[in-house]
Amino acid sequence: MTVILVTNDDGVHAPGILALYGAMNELGDTYIVAPDRERSAAGHSLTLHRPLKAEEIRAQVFSINGTPTDCVTLGINKLLPQKPDIVVSGINRGANLGDDITYSGTVSAAIEGTMFGVPSVAFSVVSDKDFQYETAAFFAKKIVSYVLRHSLPYDTLLNVNFPEVSRQEIKGIKITRQGKRIYENSIQETYNPWGEKYYWIGGGRTFWEHGDEADMEAVQQNYISITPIHLDLTNHAALTYLRDSWKVSDMLGDTDEKL
Amino acid sequence: MTVILVTNDDGVHAPGILALYGAMNELGDTYIVAPDRERSAAGHSLTLHRPLKAEEIRAQVFSINGTPTDCVTLGINKLLPQKPDIVVSGINRGANLGDDITYSGTVSAAIEGTMFGVPSVAFSVVSDKDFQYETAAFFAKKIVSYVLRHSLPYDTLLNVNFPEVSRQEIKGIKITRQGKRIYENSIQETYNPWGEKYYWIGGGRTFWEHGDEADMEAVQQNYISITPIHLDLTNHAALTYLRDSWKVSDMLGDTDEKL
Repeated sequence: MTVILVTNDDGVHAPGILALYGAMNELGDTYIVAPDRERSAAGHSLTLHRPLKAEEIRAQVFSINGTPTDCVTLGINKLLPQKPDIVVSGINRGANLGDDITYSGTVSAAIEGTMFGVPSVAFSVVSDKDFQYETAAFFAKKIVSYVLRHSLPYDTLLNVNFPEVSRQEIKGIKITRQGKRIYENSIQETYNPWGEKYYWIGGGRTFWEHGDEADMEAVQQNYISITPIHLDLTNHAALTYLRDSWKVSDMLGDTDEKL
Repeated sequence: MTVILVTNDDGVHAPGILALYGAMNELGDTYIVAPDRERSAAGHSLTLHRPLKAEEIRAQVFSINGTPTDCVTLGINKLLPQKPDIVVSGINRGANLGDDITYSGTVSAAIEGTMFGVPSVAFSVVSDKDFQYETAAFFAKKIVSYVLRHSLPYDTLLNVNFPEVSRQEIKGIKITRQGKRIYENSIQETYNPWGEKYYWIGGGRTFWEHGDEADMEAVQQNYISITPIHLDLTNHAALTYLRDSWKVSDMLGDTDEKL
C-alpha cells in the first residue's frame, strides 16, 4: 500500500491542503501532518528551542504547533506507521518561483522529505486570488502518480507551479529551471501608536529576468512548470573556477609571519 | 570607503559577531544589523506578518526583532547609508556544513545579501564548546579582504567553516563542495506536566558521507573550508534527464479525455 504524507505552510485548515488530500487519497493511504496555522515564508526552519505537540484532529490528520519542516520530520520519524513513499506539500496559496523558493515553507517541506530519502513534490498555484485548487489537485494526482511509478533523481525534489487558468486552458507541462526575480522597494515604513518607526517587509514591485526555460515563463504561457531542485547548493562551476584562479596562499597573506 | 554589513543568527550580543565586527572594522565602515536574540535554525525566513523595529543600541549597531534574513534586507534597503560592499554573517557558534546549511540562519543571511547583488560570506566555527572566535576572526579578515579585491562569481556566496584548532594548527584553506549528512534518531519524546506527549527535535546521532573535496572532510583535516554556494537550486543534470526520459504527455495521461 502506498503511504503518502501531505503537508503545507498555509496551515492544516487551508483549502489548498484539503484539495491535495482529496486527490492523494485516491492514490494511497494518506496522512496530513501540517502546521496549526499559516507559516508562510518560514523557510527551511526547524523548531529546536521548545517541544512540539502533535494533535490528531481527525483520523490520520495531525496539527503541529511548528513549521512545515517540523511537520515533515515528525511525520516521517514519529507519526506515520511507516516511512512514506512520497511527501507532497501544498497546494500553496501563491507562487513559489525563482529565488523565492528559498523562503518557501512549501518547498522547504519537500527539501526535508528529500533529506530523509523520500521522493518529494511541492505544489503551488500562481495567483493573487481565485485559487483554482481543484484544477491543481486534478493535475497533482497525475504528477504524483507518475513520480510514484518513475521515482526521482538522487537528492532531487520537484517544485510544481500551476498557472491560474481553468483545466481546459492549461497547455501542458514544461520541465523548467529556477528563474530569477528582482525586488524593488519591498519594505514599507510605518509608525506605532507612539510615533516610533517600524518597517514592514512586503509590497513593492518585482520584476522577472526573462529567459527560455524559466519556471515563470512556462507559467505565464499557461503551462504547468516542474523544476527539479536539488539539495547540493554547491556552485560546481565556481568551485572549479575558484580553485584555478584564486591563490589561496595569497588569501592567507602574511599568516606565516603571524603564526 | 568600503561599507560592510555584519549580521548573524546567534543574536546581536553574541561573542562571535563581536569578534567579526572587530575584524571588519579594520577593513571599512562597519555596521551591525542583527537579531535581538538567538535565531538558530531560522532558515531563510522572512517576517511578513508584523512590522519590525530597528533599535540602534550603539552607533552603527542595530538590534532587530526579526530573523537574520530580515536584518539583511532592512540593513541593505533602509538602515545603511549606502548599499554595502559586502555582507558578512557570523561568526556562527557551531558548524554550517552539508545539507544543514539550508536550515542555517547564518547562511540564509548571506543568501539574502546575494539576492540583492551584494557579495556575501557566511562564517562558522565547527565546535561544541571552546569557540575560537579570535582565530576565526583573524582569518575572516583575510578572506573578506581577498573577496573585496577579487569579487565573487555571479549569484554565489561563500560558506566558510573554521576547524576548532589554534591558529598555528590551521593547515590552510580548501575550496570545497557541500557534503552530505545522514540523520538518525534526532527527535526525543517528552511529556508535559499533565502527561501529554511532546516531541523535541534535536540530539540523536549524525553521520557524514565521506568523500574527497567535501566541506566536512577539509575541516576534519584542520583546513578552513570555503564552499561556493549559489542561489540556483535547479538540478540542471536532472532537468536534461527528465526532459529526455519523462514522457510529459504520459504524465498528463487521460487529461484530454477529461478536458
